[in-house]
Amino acid sequence: MNDTTLKSIAKSLVPENYLALANDARAERDKEVKLLLEQRKLPILGWSESLVEYLVSELALLDSNNFPSRCGVGEREGRVVCDLVRRRHYNFTHGIGRSGNLTDAQPKAAGSTILANITNSLVCDLIRSVGIPNCTKAIVIPLATGMTMMLALRAIHSKRPTSRYVLWSRVDQQSCFKSICAAGLKPIIIDSLLASECSTTPGSSQCQDVGSSFSTDFPGFVSKINELGADQICCIVSTTSCFAPRSSDDIIELAKLCQAHDIPHLVNNAYGLQSSYFSHQLNQGARTGRIDAFIQSTDKNLLVPVGGAIVAGFTTETVESIARLYPGRASGTQSLDVLMTLLSLGKNGYDSLMKERKEVYGTLLEGLKNLAQTHGERILPCRNPISIAMSLASFEGKSGRLEMIGSMLLKRGVSGCRVVSSSDNKTIDGNTFERWGSHSSSASVPYLTASAALGIKPHEVTNFLAKLDEVLHKYRVKYMGDRN
Amino acid sequence: MNDTTLKSIAKSLVPENYLALANDARAERDKEVKLLLEQRKLPILGWSESLVEYLVSELALLDSNNFPSRCGVGEREGRVVCDLVRRRHYNFTHGIGRSGNLTDAQPKAAGSTILANITNSLVCDLIRSVGIPNCTKAIVIPLATGMTMMLALRAIHSKRPTSRYVLWSRVDQQSCFKSICAAGLKPIIIDSLLASECSTTPGSSQCQDVGSSFSTDFPGFVSKINELGADQICCIVSTTSCFAPRSSDDIIELAKLCQAHDIPHLVNNAYGLQSSYFSHQLNQGARTGRIDAFIQSTDKNLLVPVGGAIVAGFTTETVESIARLYPGRASGTQSLDVLMTLLSLGKNGYDSLMKERKEVYGTLLEGLKNLAQTHGERILPCRNPISIAMSLASFEGKSGRLEMIGSMLLKRGVSGCRVVSSSDNKTIDGNTFERWGSHSSSASVPYLTASAALGIKPHEVTNFLAKLDEVLHKYRVKYMGDRN
Amino acid sequence: MNDTTLKSIAKSLVPENYLALANDARAERDKEVKLLLEQRKLPILGWSESLVEYLVSELALLDSNNFPSRCGVGEREGRVVCDLVRRRHYNFTHGIGRSGNLTDAQPKAAGSTILANITNSLVCDLIRSVGIPNCTKAIVIPLATGMTMMLALRAIHSKRPTSRYVLWSRVDQQSCFKSICAAGLKPIIIDSLLASECSTTPGSSQCQDVGSSFSTDFPGFVSKINELGADQICCIVSTTSCFAPRSSDDIIELAKLCQAHDIPHLVNNAYGLQSSYFSHQLNQGARTGRIDAFIQSTDKNLLVPVGGAIVAGFTTETVESIARLYPGRASGTQSLDVLMTLLSLGKNGYDSLMKERKEVYGTLLEGLKNLAQTHGERILPCRNPISIAMSLASFEGKSGRLEMIGSMLLKRGVSGCRVVSSSDNKTIDGNTFERWGSHSSSASVPYLTASAALGIKPHEVTNFLAKLDEVLHKYRVKYMGDRN
Amino acid sequence: MNDTTLKSIAKSLVPENYLALANDARAERDKEVKLLLEQRKLPILGWSESLVEYLVSELALLDSNNFPSRCGVGEREGRVVCDLVRRRHYNFTHGIGRSGNLTDAQPKAAGSTILANITNSLVCDLIRSVGIPNCTKAIVIPLATGMTMMLALRAIHSKRPTSRYVLWSRVDQQSCFKSICAAGLKPIIIDSLLASECSTTPGSSQCQDVGSSFSTDFPGFVSKINELGADQICCIVSTTSCFAPRSSDDIIELAKLCQAHDIPHLVNNAYGLQSSYFSHQLNQGARTGRIDAFIQSTDKNLLVPVGGAIVAGFTTETVESIARLYPGRASGTQSLDVLMTLLSLGKNGYDSLMKERKEVYGTLLEGLKNLAQTHGERILPCRNPISIAMSLASFEGKSGRLEMIGSMLLKRGVSGCRVVSSSDNKTIDGNTFERWGSHSSSASVPYLTASAALGIKPHEVTNFLAKLDEVLHKYRVKYMGDRN
Repeated sequence: MNDTTLKSIAKSLVPENYLALANDARAERDKEVKLLLEQRKLPILGWSESLVEYLVSELALLDSNNFPSRCGVGEREGRVVCDLVRRRHYNFTHGIGRSGNLTDAQPKAAGSTILANITNSLVCDLIRSVGIPNCTKAIVIPLATGMTMMLALRAIHSKRPTSRYVLWSRVDQQSCFKSICAAGLKPIIIDSLLASECSTTPGSSQCQDVGSSFSTDFPGFVSKINELGADQICCIVSTTSCFAPRSSDDIIELAKLCQAHDIPHLVNNAYGLQSSYFSHQLNQGARTGRIDAFIQSTDKNLLVPVGGAIVAGFTTETVESIARLYPGRASGTQSLDVLMTLLSLGKNGYDSLMKERKEVYGTLLEGLKNLAQTHGERILPCRNPISIAMSLASFEGKSGRLEMIGSMLLKRGVSGCRVVSSSDNKTIDGNTFERWGSHSSSASVPYLTASAALGIKPHEVTNFLAKLDEVLHKYRVKYMGDRN
Repeated sequence: MNDTTLKSIAKSLVPENYLALANDARAERDKEVKLLLEQRKLPILGWSESLVEYLVSELALLDSNNFPSRCGVGEREGRVVCDLVRRRHYNFTHGIGRSGNLTDAQPKAAGSTILANITNSLVCDLIRSVGIPNCTKAIVIPLATGMTMMLALRAIHSKRPTSRYVLWSRVDQQSCFKSICAAGLKPIIIDSLLASECSTTPGSSQCQDVGSSFSTDFPGFVSKINELGADQICCIVSTTSCFAPRSSDDIIELAKLCQAHDIPHLVNNAYGLQSSYFSHQLNQGARTGRIDAFIQSTDKNLLVPVGGAIVAGFTTETVESIARLYPGRASGTQSLDVLMTLLSLGKNGYDSLMKERKEVYGTLLEGLKNLAQTHGERILPCRNPISIAMSLASFEGKSGRLEMIGSMLLKRGVSGCRVVSSSDNKTIDGNTFERWGSHSSSASVPYLTASAALGIKPHEVTNFLAKLDEVLHKYRVKYMGDRN
Repeated sequence: MNDTTLKSIAKSLVPENYLALANDARAERDKEVKLLLEQRKLPILGWSESLVEYLVSELALLDSNNFPSRCGVGEREGRVVCDLVRRRHYNFTHGIGRSGNLTDAQPKAAGSTILANITNSLVCDLIRSVGIPNCTKAIVIPLATGMTMMLALRAIHSKRPTSRYVLWSRVDQQSCFKSICAAGLKPIIIDSLLASECSTTPGSSQCQDVGSSFSTDFPGFVSKINELGADQICCIVSTTSCFAPRSSDDIIELAKLCQAHDIPHLVNNAYGLQSSYFSHQLNQGARTGRIDAFIQSTDKNLLVPVGGAIVAGFTTETVESIARLYPGRASGTQSLDVLMTLLSLGKNGYDSLMKERKEVYGTLLEGLKNLAQTHGERILPCRNPISIAMSLASFEGKSGRLEMIGSMLLKRGVSGCRVVSSSDNKTIDGNTFERWGSHSSSASVPYLTASAALGIKPHEVTNFLAKLDEVLHKYRVKYMGDRN
Repeated sequence: MNDTTLKSIAKSLVPENYLALANDARAERDKEVKLLLEQRKLPILGWSESLVEYLVSELALLDSNNFPSRCGVGEREGRVVCDLVRRRHYNFTHGIGRSGNLTDAQPKAAGSTILANITNSLVCDLIRSVGIPNCTKAIVIPLATGMTMMLALRAIHSKRPTSRYVLWSRVDQQSCFKSICAAGLKPIIIDSLLASECSTTPGSSQCQDVGSSFSTDFPGFVSKINELGADQICCIVSTTSCFAPRSSDDIIELAKLCQAHDIPHLVNNAYGLQSSYFSHQLNQGARTGRIDAFIQSTDKNLLVPVGGAIVAGFTTETVESIARLYPGRASGTQSLDVLMTLLSLGKNGYDSLMKERKEVYGTLLEGLKNLAQTHGERILPCRNPISIAMSLASFEGKSGRLEMIGSMLLKRGVSGCRVVSSSDNKTIDGNTFERWGSHSSSASVPYLTASAALGIKPHEVTNFLAKLDEVLHKYRVKYMGDRN
């Protein structure tokens, strides 16, 4: 209700002094909304559900499909025929962007336009606050991470139209690799290097050599640049978050290399926002070298349904050039999910999630170390603050049924634990990966991985450890002939 | 958002001219809301879902449980712990009324107070528009009809504390009768009178004598008044809508009688608002005689879930004295349902429902007449614009399994069709009703009833008639030995 | 989906092994539901929102208004015309009970019937678990507390039709008193007695005489019984939870008195379930004396919107006789709210709420004690585990504007803090209460009350104490001429 | 509830015969669901909201994020932290597809997998039923049309890696053109040809020459193929639905050309499903020539929010190769919207929408013809069953403020009416379009367009015509000096 309407509420409907108190509350609420619209910062404290819905509903009412008296004679009028659909989208139907640009304002949809802009601002504020203060622009893209990588690659390529190659530090996850091929570019796979490594978690100062881990083959990159010529290279794609035992790429050094050779640098930061370690790497990389953009999923970092990604970077123009490539308008549903989530959480809420994740990671590492000891195995060394790999060397045997460990866990309600046997190869789009899943052709030990990702609860880790212990025992009895 | 907030939306968020259009729409919407709050009339055209939710949400925000910063140190602070519950009540939690009075304003809940008042005004406007222009006050009571009758009886009794009896024209529906007993009063049952009747539907001018029907035993009332003394009579309770073959009571004559003897008159208009015939009777009764209040259910007349009733009358004080008796605050859920329904429908929407009901009634009557003829039965004559009774005389036989007709229909998805065999007696609170279900101890023919009530769809009647025909045939084959 | 449907999902839609895992989860979920339906006990752990909605939706589908192919030719077919209304009621429309009885099964609504029965069972289980193990029956009534008291009084009176009086230990809250009058009975007010009292909170063993508090005038009851004759007394109404400085009535002694004189005993336990002290009193009272029924609100004890009450007792028949008096069917919305809330909370959730309340009560008492000391006031002694009264003697002065303290607090977002000046009288239905608000005509000191009721959060008390301190200071400056 | 649970409902909860009826209804409902899962055809009659939600909820429960007891130690566990978000997605969080392929089944999400598959089947069934019976495969892609075109182009290019050009019949709408550039391909623009045309609507048999209209420059295509060489051409992109006065491309002839030269053919059928004329062209084109895939938006053809498109074609492999290119999993929200919409509508519902659209188109054409006559203008001839262009030659004058007509209409609530002045050029990605908006560099007359698109209501056209008349009159007075 606007102010005039409120004043029109007659005393015969409700006594003036009762209404006055309500009006004070209304003013307080609107102050909060005004602050958001003016400052576009993540609020410190999360908003109540009703305040979030209040804002979202008010914005939707600014879109033309919700105007009381209107007649639409265009070909796209935001009509929604199924009520269930209309309601679940809070009456937003026009999506975001225009034919020309994903970040353009829509004449028919002022509310959707504001929603998209505010969301991007809040996301940028969040990114700055978790450890990347130099970030200047972030845009929520209604594409999942892989497709967004492809969009970014095409945008970069459109400025280097004669380049052909993408240098890519091998990480055994299909969608990033596929995005290079889908973009019509030729991936040059730089295998991970087996290097000696310290056993501590990132951020810790103590380092103690315990074995070898997989890391970025820096010399390999240099030699490929020299071989192919910097001009022929569209960009380098590096990766932060990934499954253990692969470590994060050495973002800082790669950024320096890119700057030195004037090669664009795209970082796949898939679920990296949840770890301050990765954020620090990105900020340092951009400060001391070149990072054109870093891309991360909204689902893993912001705990929304799958389907969106964030393109962020250190100059507005670079990020916007990616959004500008998007041909036509797009779904607004990811922006809405992100906006509602960020307002509900507030900065404190997100900080708590990160803090809890870090603590649970500690518990998981400790638990797996103990379990490894019990079963005569070890934690594979690596620089990875989220994922942990435990060797399964003594389980391999002749029977070769290691994958049954995964099945047995799944049957017990454990999801996300991967068992990797070191022997399988895989071919994608004509490129063969030796020992697929191990991130390196020189890998030799079978292992399982488990992660402590954002949103994980302590009891999940406790249950997982108990179930894993049970499964490993049963496996030995069933498949390796141990006595019960 | 208040006007200042809207103005604070910077051009960097959305171009000014796009926002200007949205603001026009916003003004239009608020004009509609303002009109409602000022005039408190049922809008002609129904509102869109989003406008209804907009109003309801704005009202809820005026209640203290939704104030952003508050601390509650009372014993009732409107806290709701289950989110599912909170959401389905649109954040309303304080109910309506105060300890003193159901229509009092609540200091903690300005929004709920407005909601209750607006709803009562709209209901009164509706009642006036459907044929009772003399009605001056209506209140939605969060009690189903029977309990509301009891409340009204107690309110009337509190002004006639020495009276003991309620004169009641027999209608075989338990809850009204029970409400008299529950009120601690002694019901005097005046059996229906078997009188000759015309066959036409009410409102039609042609009348043709076709048999006898049950009607109000007017002389019986007069004689009871004389016998007991008017002072001893708390009130007369009459009934409009009821199952055929009982006709509506002769409200007008009873109203005159009440006026003549200075006896309060309470009308059970259970589902009578949906028929303009009953409305006309009520308006005439009040104009030429005495009607203190008439009570009807919200579920049957307004198509909301069971649980509310409307007390309406011709002087504000009489109606309010009933609401005032209600000890303490009460559920606001019925008012919310009624408000959302009336705004969604608008006057035109309610008129359409009434029109469709009347047409479907015509189809049902015609169809049953044909069916009766086919099966050698007849439509029982009565003055009843909603319910129709068809005799089942030829189905009775020795087997005495008439109730199977009901079961067979139920099994085929037909609900609401009652089969009444004329022989059962029933005792309620010590009062015995001969031939229960027939509304009269002089009834003699078994029958079934079917109604065309508000919200019925043409295909329901078509299906019913087909299924009834099938069932009657099967019944004869199965229970009466007819050949298939 | 039933089991056959699930099996019909072809492998071409989803691989068999993926579906198998989902089926395990489905079985687990159904096991939980089955357990609930069979044992009808409050689950220990709260259910997830989606499980609660799953159960509720499944139950709704058992009601005839949701049958896919049906035709309704009755006068009440559960039709709902407004989609917003239908959805918020989860497709339940038939309410609960039948014309004959609030606890009767409905032929058209098997789901609603189950819902009501399960809810009553869970409530009974909750009551037994919080300290009244002897309770055998509880029924959720869709009436707020006052109206439910009236219903109970009428039910009791129907068995003692010649009785006229209700003996009532004075408590200055209108709705309970009004319910006696509304029931058509004559209240006999027994004023509270000023007696010496110990300062500790209930349950504590240490007791230290600190002044006088108001308690049940036991001799007054005895003398009235003798004066009027036990036969003339419909029942005694006692009260547990109430505003300080009134103490809870001595339920145990009154129960013994009722048993001795064969007088029914109805306890107004308005918000008493949240305190184990009151529960203990009730259980002991029933064990050693007579308690016919105790009545409490659903909103204050179960944190749902206003509108329901629970009638509970120690013999099934007594409780059911009250439900049986209810004439006609009634709203199911309160049962639905209670069911969803109890399943969401589980036993552990409710226990946590009680525990938190008790702790916050301690904080509030401590804080007010300190504040009282600072301002030269004292905590008024009383046996009240929820509400606390602090004297305002030094604030009274000539100006006599004590009520401004309440306004100033309200303006600062504090709700529920009552300021009681000892001088006002009030007349309700012809009965005059001296010093209304003080629960006794012998009260002499002005005071304010604050409560720690279920659902209160620690920060509310912290904020309240700070604001109260500020207000008391400002009041002295503004109205009593103190220097700032 | 599974069958065992239902059976476990004791008689003490609800009488057996009441439950039996409910069980019959349950069986009926499940039969409908089973039929859908088995046959995967669009139901003839639309489903009720509650049945749609029943299916959707049951499917969601098959996804691992909704399993009651689980522990997730992966990096993507479908966690959703904001309840508002979770609820609006009906507890679906895993999206659709896997890293390898958009149509792959997800181990963690059997429900989402079924949802996506069923949706694709229903969409294919719909496409076949509206006039393209030869269509064999359709996939809902969670990308808006332009981005989907880009994906399709990249998929086609991956099989013709040495090709460089896309031959494109000019249509002045940015996003399709941009999709070619974004795919990294070089667009060859074939300007529309001005040819003589008949005035009738498509499908009518009568044809009457009334002037010239813009059509596909068929010889232009042939000459470009010869010039560039078929091998160098990645594909031809043609367009069906577009703004008048551009006609639909001659799909059939282009399809033959593509077949003759072995060049892939991609059709931009943006909002063409709603017209049986376009569908017929597509089916014929595929029968007599080559169409690899046709792409259309979900929002315009199925009335859901912006954000999805359908890729359809005549061989499963061709369509799937496009889906397979999508790197990684994707949003499931578009599939959910489409599924709920199609089930709600049923085949009959969609047919009604198409029928109403066609009728309203007739009204619009008639109305604009009359208006054109009144104002001395004419309808521009073209083969376009959705959009109509009316000349504005006499409004041009010196003032050159034709765009004000658009503003004046917008101000009156008319959206979607475009005013095109013939003089503006536009450059996109280095390509210049003369007389942008006219689809041809040889256009010479200014005009406005209005469309009758799916979902339009008769009153919208009536209002539009009245407002347009008013605006044209006012424009003459204000900008051209006519007397009022």
